[in-house]
Amino acid sequence: MDHSKIISGFSKLNKNQKLGLISRYSENPDQALNDLKSFWHSNADMQKMLDEFSENTLTNYFFPYGVAPNVMINGKVYIVPMVIEESSVIAAASNGAKYWAGKGGFHSEVLSVTKLGQVHFIWKGDFNRLKSLFPELRKLLLARSAPLTANMEKRGGGVLDMELVDKTDVLDNYYQLSVKFDTRDSMGANFINSCLEEYAAGIKSFVNESGLFEGEPLQVIMSILSNYTPECLVKTWVECDVSEFSDIDKSLKAEDFVWKFEKAVQIANVDTHRAATHNKGIFNGIDAVALATGNDFRAIEACGHAWAARTGKYKSLTEVKVENGKFHYSLTLPLAIGTVGGLTSLHPMAKFSLELLGNPQAPELMQIASAVGLANNFGAIKSLTTKGIQIGHMKMHLLNVLNSFNAADYEKLLAVEYFKNHKVSYSGVSGFLASIRNGN
Amino acid sequence: MDHSKIISGFSKLNKNQKLGLISRYSENPDQALNDLKSFWHSNADMQKMLDEFSENTLTNYFFPYGVAPNVMINGKVYIVPMVIEESSVIAAASNGAKYWAGKGGFHSEVLSVTKLGQVHFIWKGDFNRLKSLFPELRKLLLARSAPLTANMEKRGGGVLDMELVDKTDVLDNYYQLSVKFDTRDSMGANFINSCLEEYAAGIKSFVNESGLFEGEPLQVIMSILSNYTPECLVKTWVECDVSEFSDIDKSLKAEDFVWKFEKAVQIANVDTHRAATHNKGIFNGIDAVALATGNDFRAIEACGHAWAARTGKYKSLTEVKVENGKFHYSLTLPLAIGTVGGLTSLHPMAKFSLELLGNPQAPELMQIASAVGLANNFGAIKSLTTKGIQIGHMKMHLLNVLNSFNAADYEKLLAVEYFKNHKVSYSGVSGFLASIRNGN
Repeated sequence: MDHSKIISGFSKLNKNQKLGLISRYSENPDQALNDLKSFWHSNADMQKMLDEFSENTLTNYFFPYGVAPNVMINGKVYIVPMVIEESSVIAAASNGAKYWAGKGGFHSEVLSVTKLGQVHFIWKGDFNRLKSLFPELRKLLLARSAPLTANMEKRGGGVLDMELVDKTDVLDNYYQLSVKFDTRDSMGANFINSCLEEYAAGIKSFVNESGLFEGEPLQVIMSILSNYTPECLVKTWVECDVSEFSDIDKSLKAEDFVWKFEKAVQIANVDTHRAATHNKGIFNGIDAVALATGNDFRAIEACGHAWAARTGKYKSLTEVKVENGKFHYSLTLPLAIGTVGGLTSLHPMAKFSLELLGNPQAPELMQIASAVGLANNFGAIKSLTTKGIQIGHMKMHLLNVLNSFNAADYEKLLAVEYFKNHKVSYSGVSGFLASIRNGN
Repeated sequence: MDHSKIISGFSKLNKNQKLGLISRYSENPDQALNDLKSFWHSNADMQKMLDEFSENTLTNYFFPYGVAPNVMINGKVYIVPMVIEESSVIAAASNGAKYWAGKGGFHSEVLSVTKLGQVHFIWKGDFNRLKSLFPELRKLLLARSAPLTANMEKRGGGVLDMELVDKTDVLDNYYQLSVKFDTRDSMGANFINSCLEEYAAGIKSFVNESGLFEGEPLQVIMSILSNYTPECLVKTWVECDVSEFSDIDKSLKAEDFVWKFEKAVQIANVDTHRAATHNKGIFNGIDAVALATGNDFRAIEACGHAWAARTGKYKSLTEVKVENGKFHYSLTLPLAIGTVGGLTSLHPMAKFSLELLGNPQAPELMQIASAVGLANNFGAIKSLTTKGIQIGHMKMHLLNVLNSFNAADYEKLLAVEYFKNHKVSYSGVSGFLASIRNGN
C-alpha cells in the first residue's frame, strides 16, 4: 500500500467504510475483511456498545479470560478472574494461591484510600496574602463544586481536604492547589477532574477578578488528578514457619530455600535491573485482575513504579523478613482501582468478573489484586531460586510453540508427553515435529 | 456462593466443567454460561488456539480494536492499530498525528537495541582470581550456549558481551554475570533466559567442580533477563516554528500557548505527582500499540517508569526546548518490543496489526509506538493547557454514559446534539434523558 498519503475525514466514515479502507492494507483484502469481522460479537447491540468504548473501532482484540481459584484472603476464598496474554501467569498465580491457602492464605490490609488532584498555577502575586485569604477562597471553591460532589457525598465520599502549596523552590512562581478526595468505590478520575476544573476557574476569578489582588494575573497551567496515589495504599502478606518449606523443593532444605529467597529479594532492593523485572512479575498478576475488572492498568503501573522509586532509588515492592524461625513476605503498594463507574459495569465481562468476586467494594478489590500480584511474585522467585524459570514457563508456552508450527492435535499430545522429560525450545519442538512427520 | 472452600484439581477439569463450576457463582448460572460462551470465536480451532495462550481459560475478554490514521514518522505515513479500553485515547492520538503530519510529522531515531540479562550469585571465594580466569570461563560459557544462539546468530543477533560485576558494595558477597544480547526483531525473553540458565550452570561447575577454587561453593541465586533496558532506546520528536501555533486555540496567542506548554512539561519534571500522570498519558498510546501487536505491556511499563526515575527523582519522559522561535518536543525512552516470536505472529489480530504497519522490524515498531505515545502526550497537554481535559474526554465518554442509562438510539442522537453545547456529566446526562423521557 501507499505509505505516503494523508487520509482526511477518516473518523467520519462509518464502520464498514473504515473496514473497507483498512482491509486494503492486507495482501488479501477480502480475507482480511472476513477475519476482522469474525471477531465481532454475534449480538449487534453488544458489538455497538463495545465499539463505543473507544474511537475508530473496527473489531475486537481477544484476550484469554481465565481464573485463578483458591485465592484465600483474610480467610475468604476467591476465584479470581484474570485477563492476560502471557502464558504461565495464571498457572503461577493459581499454584501460589493454593500453596498459601494451605498456610493460612494471604493477609491484607487497606492502609488508606485517599486520591489526589492538583491545580497547577504560575503567579507573581503575594502568596502570603492569598494564603491568609484561603479560608474564604476555600468556601467559594467548595460552593462551586457542590453540584458535582453532591452524589459522591451521598455515597460517603467527597472532598477531604485542600491546601495551597508553595512550589517556588523547584520552579519560579509555581504554586499548587492540592486537593484530597475520597471517591469511594470509583477510581474517580472524571469526578476529580471535573471538581478541579471548577477550582481552577474559581481560583482564577478570586485572584484576577475580585479586585483583591493587583499586578500580574494568576495563570492556571492545568488542572488534573494525579495518578500517583501514595495515600491509597494496600499491604498484603504471607507468613509461616521456615520449617514449613521443607517440601518446597527436592534439592533444597527449608532454611536453604529461605536463604536463597531472602537473597533474591535483597538483590531486587539493591539492583534496579533486577528490581524492574521483580516488580514486572507483580504487575503480571495485578494487571490481569485490573483488565478482567475493567480497570485502567496504565494508571496502576505509573503509580506503582513511581512509588517503587520514592526513596531516590528504584526498588522492589516486596519485603522479606526472617526472624526467630518465622518467614514473613509482604507487598505494599498504592492501588487506585474501582468497582463502579468507567467500564466496570458497562463491559459485560468486567461485570461478570466482579460478580464472580462477590461484587466487592474497591478496598476489597485492592486486596484481591495485590494478593494475586504477591502470588505471582512468590511463584516467580520460587522458580528462579530452585529449578529456574524456563522449565515451567516453556512448558506452559509449549502449546503456543506447537501452534506456531501448525501442529495437529495428535502431534500436540505426543509432544506434551515427550517434553515432560525434555527441555522445551523452538528448535527442540521443531526437531521433535520433524521426527514425527518423517515417521522416525 | 460459598466463599470458604478450596477447590482441588481445577486445572485438570475440561473447559466445559470449568465453565459449569464458574457460572454457578452468578445469580443466574444459565444466563452466565450463555453470556460467557457468547464471547467465544465461532471457529473452534481458532478458539482452541486462543485458549492455549494462557491457563484455566474460559472465554475471551473483548477490547476495542481501533486505528489512528495519519501517523507520519520520518516521512512515512502509518495507520496505527490501537487496542485500548479508555475512551478518547485513540481520538487524541489521531488528532495529534494529523496535526503534526501537517508540520513534517514525527522524527524518530533508534539510539540502541541492546538487551540485558543477569546471573546473580553469592560467593565468598577469590573474585580477583575468577576475574583473571574470565577469558577461559567466557569461552566455556559461549560454547554451552552455542546450540541456543545458532539461530539468533543466523539472523544477525546473539550474545554481544558478558562481564563479571562486583556488587559487594551493595550486598555482601554479591556478584553478577551481566550479559548483553542483540535479539533482533524478537523481544527475546525466552532466548535470553535460556542462555542465562546455561551460563548459571556453567559458572557453577567452573567454580565448584573444576578444582580451581576452594572454600565455600558459589551459589547461583537466579538467572533472568532484565526488563530494564536503558540501552534499547528510541528518541522521537516534533518541531516547528513557535508562530505556527497561532491557530491552535482561539483564546491563546502562539507564544502564550508555547509558554504554558513549556511550564506544563517543566512541572512534570519537578513534581512526581504530575510526572506519573504525564507519563501515564504517554503509555496510553504506547501500550495500545503494544497490545495491538502482541507485545508485553508490563515489561514496557516497568522499564519506562524505572527509567523515568534514573536520576534519583521520578520525572517526565518528555523534554521541551524553545529557542530562537523554534519549538522542539521530544520523547526518549527504552522500549524493548518485538515483531517476531511470542504472540506477534500467533494472535491473528496481532498478525493483522503488523501487516497493517507494513510488517516492520522491531526498531521501526519502537518508532511507531513512541510516536503514538508522543501524539497522546501532546494532545493531553494541549487540552490541559487550553480548554481543559474534561470537555473533550467527557464528549468521547458520552456514549458510554448514555449506554450506562440504556439510552435508545434516538436518545443518543438527541443527546450528542444537545451536549455539543453543554457540559457532559453523569447527572447532566441523567437529567437530559429524564427530560426526553418525560416528554419535556
